[in-house]
Parts: sequence; C-alpha cells; structure tokens
Amino acid sequence: MPVERLQRALEYSFVRAELLQQALTHRSYGSPHNERLEFLGDSVLNCVIASLLYERFPALREGELSRLRASLVRQDTLAEISASLNFGDYLRLGEGELKSGGFRRPSILADGLEAVIGAIYLDNGFDAARKSIERLFLPLLSRIDPKASAKDAKTELQELLQARRLPLPLYTLLATRGEAHSQEFEVECVIASLGVRATGIGSSRRNAEQAAARAAVEQVASQ
Amino acid sequence: MPVERLQRALEYSFVRAELLQQALTHRSYGSPHNERLEFLGDSVLNCVIASLLYERFPALREGELSRLRASLVRQDTLAEISASLNFGDYLRLGEGELKSGGFRRPSILADGLEAVIGAIYLDNGFDAARKSIERLFLPLLSRIDPKASAKDAKTELQELLQARRLPLPLYTLLATRGEAHSQEFEVECVIASLGVRATGIGSSRRNAEQAAARAAVEQVASQ
Repeated sequence: MPVERLQRALEYSFVRAELLQQALTHRSYGSPHNERLEFLGDSVLNCVIASLLYERFPALREGELSRLRASLVRQDTLAEISASLNFGDYLRLGEGELKSGGFRRPSILADGLEAVIGAIYLDNGFDAARKSIERLFLPLLSRIDPKASAKDAKTELQELLQARRLPLPLYTLLATRGEAHSQEFEVECVIASLGVRATGIGSSRRNAEQAAARAAVEQVASQ
Repeated sequence: MPVERLQRALEYSFVRAELLQQALTHRSYGSPHNERLEFLGDSVLNCVIASLLYERFPALREGELSRLRASLVRQDTLAEISASLNFGDYLRLGEGELKSGGFRRPSILADGLEAVIGAIYLDNGFDAARKSIERLFLPLLSRIDPKASAKDAKTELQELLQARRLPLPLYTLLATRGEAHSQEFEVECVIASLGVRATGIGSSRRNAEQAAARAAVEQVASQ
C-alpha cells in the first residue's frame, strides 16, 4: 500500500521519507527496523497525552490523570487507532510474521504506531508530533467524562475508611444558593473519628458531595 | 530563599512566576500545590531524556535505552540533581513536613523538580523544558559510556544460548583493514546449532566481536 495514503490519513507529510519507512519496518523484516523509533515515540506519546489531559481536565488530580493516560496509551487503544488507519497494510514484516498474520497482531500494530509518532518527532519536532497525536486521539479524548472520573471520590473515601476499619463519613447539605437554573450546593463531609471536616461546592447536591469527598480524601491522605 | 537564585541556577526565567510558585508548593502547604505539575513534568522529563539518549547513542537498542532512561529519571538521581540546586531551600512545605525534614526527603525533592519541569513546559513550551533538562542532566549524560552498555552483547548472547542449553557461539576474525591508527576489524559470530551467522565491524577486535554478538542476539531473538 503506498505510504501517501497513510500520510494523508495522518495529515502529516514526511520531509525525510526514510524515517517513515523505518517506522513501518518490523524487526522481522530487516534493518533498520522500528524498535528504537518505538522507544522514542512511546515517550513522545506519553508526554503529549499527559499534556492534553492536563489542559483538558483542570480539576482532575494526578492519580486520575495517570489512570486516564494509561487507558489511552495502552496497547489495545493504540491497536484500535492503528486499525482505523488500516495501519497493518503499510507494515513491512518478515515472511514468518506475514504468514502468521502479524499485520493484525495488536502488539505489532501498537508498536508501529508509536514508531511513526517517534518518526514525526524526529522529522519535524515535538509540536508536529503533538498535532498528529491530538488528531488521532481526539475521538477518544472527547469520549472522556471527567465527572465520571470524579464520581469515584465518595467510593474512594469509603474504601479508604473501610481499609482502616473506621466508620463511614457523614455528608450534610450546608447551603443552597442561586436561582433554579444556576443553583450552587455546599456540602460538608465529616469523618469524626479522624477529626476531618471538608466542604465541597457543586452544581448539584451529588456534585457537591463528590467535591467534599475529594477534599476529605486529600486531608486523610496527608494526615 | 528568593526564587531568583533558583531561576539563575536553572538558567530559566519564568514568564508566569505563579507557575514556579505552584511547582514549589508541596501539598502539605496548601493549594494550588504541585501534584498535577509533577504528573506533567514527569512525562516531559521522560520524553526529553528518551530523545537525548536516542540522539546521543545511535547504536544502542531499545532495551538499553530504556535501562539508561530508567536510571536517569529515578528518584535518587532526581534527588541528587535537586540537592545540587539547593532545591529544598525553595520548597514550601506544611508544618509537619518542615519539622520532619521534608525538604531533605528524596521523594519530595524529586517530585518538586519534576513539577518545576512541568511548569517550564507550560510557561514556554517543550523546547524550553528540553533545554533546562539537558543542562541539568548533562553531567550525568556525559558520564554514560555506551561501550560499557554495548559490552553486554557477548554476555547477553551467551546467557541466551545457555538458557536454551545450546553450545556457545564461535567468533572468527574475518578481516583487518586500514592503517595502524584507523584500523577496522571484521568478526564473524557463528551459532551452528541455530544456523545463525552474523558479522560485526569495529575499531578493535573486541568491538567487532561485540557488534557481531549484538547482530547475532537480534537474529536469535527474531527466530
């Protein structure tokens, strides 16, 4: 398959075509192959995804950002993106791999995609790689619901306390402010046994409880 | 300690001073603290170190690059660099951490340094962060001996074969070329039991053997 089609799909055109060729060459095919580029591309991908998540979700904590990143850069996700590019059609594989369907194997597809990212980074710098990654991952990034992630705060707090064999926290609605369509709720979360008292504000009682739980988790964790 | 001194030591001056302030704020001190910046900075650091190693050591394989990177970005190394910057003096810690000597704790120093890298990235982009990292890590990068790493190829091959209960490889000098001061050696490595025959070229017989062993390891690994 001519690589022009792949370059169009990536919306990136290589200055040094040999870098793309190397990125598409599996070690079973010969040298120079894509393993070093994969090492580089994996790092660039991790960095760009971290940066995109950091900017998109200013309210998420480090642990949640790490979890999201791990889900985005894992082999299955990369293989899925590769499949949408018909990436397997462009790979150069050795006889054995070809016969055993290597162009469909998730590890080979994911590694190849990372190698292409590394090649773009070498060809045109970090920002070019960032643009391509953003384009490839936009559908996945748009699917992320930060509230779904924040939802875990109450569960997290509960598990934290249960692990210490402590009684569950008590949530109290302290105040409701504003008009019907833009109400603000303030909730207090008290863990009497630890002397922890945290408040949270949200656009619904549920969100305020989550925010309070989040603040309480931070207090408990730093005790 | 005034942060101007730290900025001089980093050879980087922040446009948004509040980013540096946040990077220096441990969660025990209050919000906004440096945990999200640490997440970001850790990714940027990994990416820059990967890129520096990739460029500096064109002959090293993915596995060796990974090992080197791990040794450069591990907590001890970061804490060591932090110490050379008197980094602990600039950190803002809560009462408890202050009393227990948190400004000397490797994890707090390493996390803070990563957060500062994240802050530079946000303040002025990837290339600015790359420059600072390169400066901080230059002494460590210069200390790396790629030959010491490449030295392992013969050992690696030997172990690979022993694990399969196969006889050891046979090295033969095929040719010596060039004049006394710029000689080139060509060595062949044969593993008869596997039908593997690889050659290597080097500036000494030892180096040529290592190169041949490296090529043989690749062949064996891809069989």
